[in-house]
Amino acid sequence: MTKVSIIKVGGNVIENPKDLDNFLKDFASITGSKILVHGGGKKVSKWAERLGIPVEMKDGRRITNTETLELITGIYGGQVNKNIVASLQGYNCNAIGLSGADANAIQAVKRPIENTDFGWVGDITYVNTSFFKLLLNNALSPICCALTHDANGQILNTNADTIASSIAVALGKDFEVTLYYCFEQMGVMKSLKDQNSLIEHIDSQIYKKLKEEHIISEGMLPKMKNSFDALQNGVSKVHIGKPEMIKGTIKHTTITL
Amino acid sequence: MTKVSIIKVGGNVIENPKDLDNFLKDFASITGSKILVHGGGKKVSKWAERLGIPVEMKDGRRITNTETLELITGIYGGQVNKNIVASLQGYNCNAIGLSGADANAIQAVKRPIENTDFGWVGDITYVNTSFFKLLLNNALSPICCALTHDANGQILNTNADTIASSIAVALGKDFEVTLYYCFEQMGVMKSLKDQNSLIEHIDSQIYKKLKEEHIISEGMLPKMKNSFDALQNGVSKVHIGKPEMIKGTIKHTTITL
Repeated sequence: MTKVSIIKVGGNVIENPKDLDNFLKDFASITGSKILVHGGGKKVSKWAERLGIPVEMKDGRRITNTETLELITGIYGGQVNKNIVASLQGYNCNAIGLSGADANAIQAVKRPIENTDFGWVGDITYVNTSFFKLLLNNALSPICCALTHDANGQILNTNADTIASSIAVALGKDFEVTLYYCFEQMGVMKSLKDQNSLIEHIDSQIYKKLKEEHIISEGMLPKMKNSFDALQNGVSKVHIGKPEMIKGTIKHTTITL
Repeated sequence: MTKVSIIKVGGNVIENPKDLDNFLKDFASITGSKILVHGGGKKVSKWAERLGIPVEMKDGRRITNTETLELITGIYGGQVNKNIVASLQGYNCNAIGLSGADANAIQAVKRPIENTDFGWVGDITYVNTSFFKLLLNNALSPICCALTHDANGQILNTNADTIASSIAVALGKDFEVTLYYCFEQMGVMKSLKDQNSLIEHIDSQIYKKLKEEHIISEGMLPKMKNSFDALQNGVSKVHIGKPEMIKGTIKHTTITL
């Protein structure tokens, strides 16, 4: 089975030009098929402030109103995505930037209004596996931003972690998929204050125990849930840690079923 | 020989949501292979003003400084491109948005400084024909914004008319290419003040005469030059007129060798 690495990189790396450049060099040097999924970091908040676009929050989460979506579409789909793609091309990686609308790569539905109307936020319903296969089979590396579409002309803001795991699951049927969640920490820590508390391996049993003991922090729970969902649906392995882990040279957390 | 329609659409259409929507419906209904090339219209100036980014002009032309390039990358590559792609998907056209960096679709060099440093402006050196063929052969419609790259990590602002003619010429070897330049006028006019002065057909001889008689306006000359360059390099036909001409229902200017 052909191997595919799917790497999600988050805000902190995107924001620091030097960190981003180092990461992109590492990404370019990965042999074999690879896919990058990125968010936009704090750029959106900065530009919203500069433009006087009000930031609506509810329960600590941003509401994607129409002006914010327009901004996000420019920043995620344009500024961040195209600069990443151009850099990777400079490092001899044949990257191709995508939103979910491009080639109908990722479809979503606007999140139903229950207690909160999150605005133009999408929950993924479909990943166009044959399109991703076409790109990978032609030695192209998809670079996906955190935008999907509803197949009716509407762009939707979609969580980048979920995009990464959805693509991973969709490709898991035809490829041996490894999913990497890169962020600012070494991996899953027993205590965020103790740099020596890294948990190097987590499986279902350990996960259950960690949850029972309330060792896993709030912020880490959605990532862990995404990881196990992916593993239960055909993804081979999940790695969580600093971006340098994709070179395989630093300690991080590996998750298996 | 397979037919390909390459359509360049300019500022006025992009700016008016209703005009753009009508145009996209028409574009979606074109049978066979098709490629769209778009600029960003006056959105860039509007956002530059809103953001307080100084607009540098020289000899009536915008200088693409670093801040302007960042803005253009967001607007052309993100906002405008992704919204066009999402709309087309809604009209059952399998569109895929591209900058020149994506899959190394279009390479350029930064314009050399002679009298004026135009900043981050690119002159096209290479069109990745095999990539465009891959997309067209898979029933995908490339939607190209006015951005190229230098293959060294730098994005460059590039004239959309030139992008359209460069792609047309590159594909002219393998396809029967028709190039459409859509803009706000009916076509090439003898007098801009007289709506009955449309010149419906121009060939090399007529062009020579029109130039000698100074009938072609300044603004039209680059479009005419691009058109004849394209025709001399393997493009079958060039049409100039209002966007509705792509349906074949309104009068416009047809250019042949």
